[in-house]
Amino acid sequence: MSSYSYATIGTGAIGGFYGSRLQKAGFEVHFLLHSDYAHVKEHGLIVQSYQGDFTLAEVNAYQQAEKMPACDVAIIGLKTTHNHLLSQILPHVVKRQGLVLILQNGLGVEEEIAEIVGDRRILAGLCFICANKVAPGHIHHLDYGQIKIAEYANNYQACGITPQMEHLAADFTAANIKVDLAEDLLLSRWQKLVWNIPYNGLSVILDATTDELMGHSGTRHLVEELMQEVALGASACDRHIHPDLIQQMLDLTDQMQPYRTSMKLDYDSGRALEIETMFGNPIRTASSLGTQLPKISTLYQQLRFLNSRRNRLKSHKLSSV
Amino acid sequence: MSSYSYATIGTGAIGGFYGSRLQKAGFEVHFLLHSDYAHVKEHGLIVQSYQGDFTLAEVNAYQQAEKMPACDVAIIGLKTTHNHLLSQILPHVVKRQGLVLILQNGLGVEEEIAEIVGDRRILAGLCFICANKVAPGHIHHLDYGQIKIAEYANNYQACGITPQMEHLAADFTAANIKVDLAEDLLLSRWQKLVWNIPYNGLSVILDATTDELMGHSGTRHLVEELMQEVALGASACDRHIHPDLIQQMLDLTDQMQPYRTSMKLDYDSGRALEIETMFGNPIRTASSLGTQLPKISTLYQQLRFLNSRRNRLKSHKLSSV
Repeated sequence: MSSYSYATIGTGAIGGFYGSRLQKAGFEVHFLLHSDYAHVKEHGLIVQSYQGDFTLAEVNAYQQAEKMPACDVAIIGLKTTHNHLLSQILPHVVKRQGLVLILQNGLGVEEEIAEIVGDRRILAGLCFICANKVAPGHIHHLDYGQIKIAEYANNYQACGITPQMEHLAADFTAANIKVDLAEDLLLSRWQKLVWNIPYNGLSVILDATTDELMGHSGTRHLVEELMQEVALGASACDRHIHPDLIQQMLDLTDQMQPYRTSMKLDYDSGRALEIETMFGNPIRTASSLGTQLPKISTLYQQLRFLNSRRNRLKSHKLSSV
Repeated sequence: MSSYSYATIGTGAIGGFYGSRLQKAGFEVHFLLHSDYAHVKEHGLIVQSYQGDFTLAEVNAYQQAEKMPACDVAIIGLKTTHNHLLSQILPHVVKRQGLVLILQNGLGVEEEIAEIVGDRRILAGLCFICANKVAPGHIHHLDYGQIKIAEYANNYQACGITPQMEHLAADFTAANIKVDLAEDLLLSRWQKLVWNIPYNGLSVILDATTDELMGHSGTRHLVEELMQEVALGASACDRHIHPDLIQQMLDLTDQMQPYRTSMKLDYDSGRALEIETMFGNPIRTASSLGTQLPKISTLYQQLRFLNSRRNRLKSHKLSSV
């Protein structure tokens, strides 16, 4: 089995971290960058990790997709709010029979990307990781790091374990990244939303860290009810979330260090929020199958309001400079 | 028909405004005060109103209920969070066959007060008014002012229009206060919650004025859905809220000046929030009758969290002085 070559699209916390680990392990990796291009071209990438720091003094950095070689695998590390760029990028950076590995949260992104990939197979990697980009080309990896990989097929039919998944798992494992393989992508996505919806949503709306949310009886109760609503949404899609998972997620969060969620970090830094893929799509998917998710819908509209106000204030600030 | 004498319990925006209007119209009024006692005893009460400013240089001010004469009517202008004080106060300030007029929002306060009033009749006045206490003994009356009065009977059976209601209406009308009489208190209370629940809740949670909430499609939609959930709660109690009322409340709010709700003012000023009577009691009442109110419940737990954090920060600030 020959090694895959990798094109990393988006070199933020996620793309930067996994791409760097792959290069460090000897894989051929090409990085597409936007605002950090000049910095990374000159200084490379720094990964500061609880599993050991390292620097890649030289990386294959690109500012334009057209200049990149077509690789075996395109790793999508963009925020979902930038997925409209992919139709211009993907044809250049991944071979016609290659793989597209989506490292994004939420629901429904595969269906969107399926329309532009041609014959390429789509896989998703759900990342369980605490990592931030703290400066251009500088990733801080605080905790966890494993990926759950599953393959996508039309209408989210479960694919089982495919050879492509096993090949990716071997490469990532060689790069010291723990990999789980999942037979059913849609189930995995709903399972991941069990954590993401309550904590990302409430952390932004209530300006709170995970430990604050868990430390008050009202929000603790609400977190659990939101998790149950996620399970209800999964049921509408004929996917069964085991009740134990909810208790596991609560216990896991109790044991975590006080944590600002990724959506809260994005909100505080003025970056785009993945409200539609993380909240809007699950609500619409369940609703189209006759199941309402009223508590999640409440969070969704609150987040849309806060995001819109922040963007207005931001553009006002820019225009008054 | 001889005039009633009035004891006003709590001389904030509501008790202060209506009590002052009654005294100005020539009624005998006695004011029970707490923190503002010394100031009001010396300087009287000032009402700055869009309907005309006036000052009452001398008022019957009391610091202790035991020193007050027993009146025909006790007007309860306290926040519901202070209702535990009423068992000590009411026996002194209102005659054994007198009336208790509750000027408070929310649900369930009559049942609580019924346990301590003996033979006295209980009425409620639902106030449609924008008024704040801006300084000790100084009320600012910004808009509206009418009261909807209804009488309470066991289990919230509708009482129709009673002679007591008509007597109160005559007195308040003489004091230039518009009065509506309602035959069914419980229906009136649920109707009032149609406005109070969405706007009070979201204004605190999202740090927003009414015009901001109405100006964004997400929150505007959420406001309307919350109103529909209030109507659902009313249905559980066999009370029917006409769909037109929801549209009327939306239109009314569109026409209002940008407004910080009373709960938002309380929150910003560090005063107690009426979360249990305005949110907890409606949720519990509906739930006990088999109807869940999930969106209102989401707001309820969010408010409990915010209130608890604010109180903790406040007491921390006090203890570090």
